[in-house]
Amino acid sequence: MRSPQHPATDDIQLTEVLRALSDPVRLEILGRLAREGHLYCFELGAEMDLHKSTLSHHYRILREAGVTHTSQEGRRKRLTLRRDDLDARFPGLLDSILAAV
Amino acid sequence: MRSPQHPATDDIQLTEVLRALSDPVRLEILGRLAREGHLYCFELGAEMDLHKSTLSHHYRILREAGVTHTSQEGRRKRLTLRRDDLDARFPGLLDSILAAV
Repeated sequence: MRSPQHPATDDIQLTEVLRALSDPVRLEILGRLAREGHLYCFELGAEMDLHKSTLSHHYRILREAGVTHTSQEGRRKRLTLRRDDLDARFPGLLDSILAAV
Repeated sequence: MRSPQHPATDDIQLTEVLRALSDPVRLEILGRLAREGHLYCFELGAEMDLHKSTLSHHYRILREAGVTHTSQEGRRKRLTLRRDDLDARFPGLLDSILAAV
C-alpha cells in the first residue's frame, strides 16, 4: 500500500492550514485529535453521521495541508495531529484555534 | 448609500474568519491593515495589480466574516481591522496569523 503524501514541515503553508480548518467537521476532527492524541480513520463516521467518502475527503484535506499525519496500523489508518510541526511553523496558531473550538 | 453589513461581535464565526484569511491576497490586506491602521478601498488595486471587482470581492469576504470594518468617508470607503472584536472572540488568533504573514 502506498504511503499517503505529507508536506515537509517547511512546506506547510498558512493559507492551506487556514483553509483546511475553515470547516466545522474538520475543526471537530482537530479538537478530537488534540484531546485524544490519535484517531482511527473511520471511527468518527457513525458518530458524526458522515459517509465514509465524505470523511475521507476531510481527512485528505487535513493531511495535504500538513495538519495531520496518517499512518497505516495493520488494516487501519491512524491519524495524529502534527502539533510540533504546526507550532514550529506558526507559533500560537493551533492553541488559539483549539481554545475557540 | 446603504451601509455595508457587518456581523455583530458575537456572531463572528471561527470557520468564516479562517476561510476569509485562507487566501494570499486577503492575508496581504490583513497585514497592511495591521501595520497601517486603515486603508482606502482602491488604493491597493494598482499596487497589487488587481482589478477593482476582484478587490471588491476580497473586501466583501473580509467584511462579511467580521475581519474588517468598512465605513464611508466622503466618496471613499475606509477599511479598518476589527482587532478588538477578533481578539475578544478568538484570543491570540490574529496575533499568531499576523506573526506568520
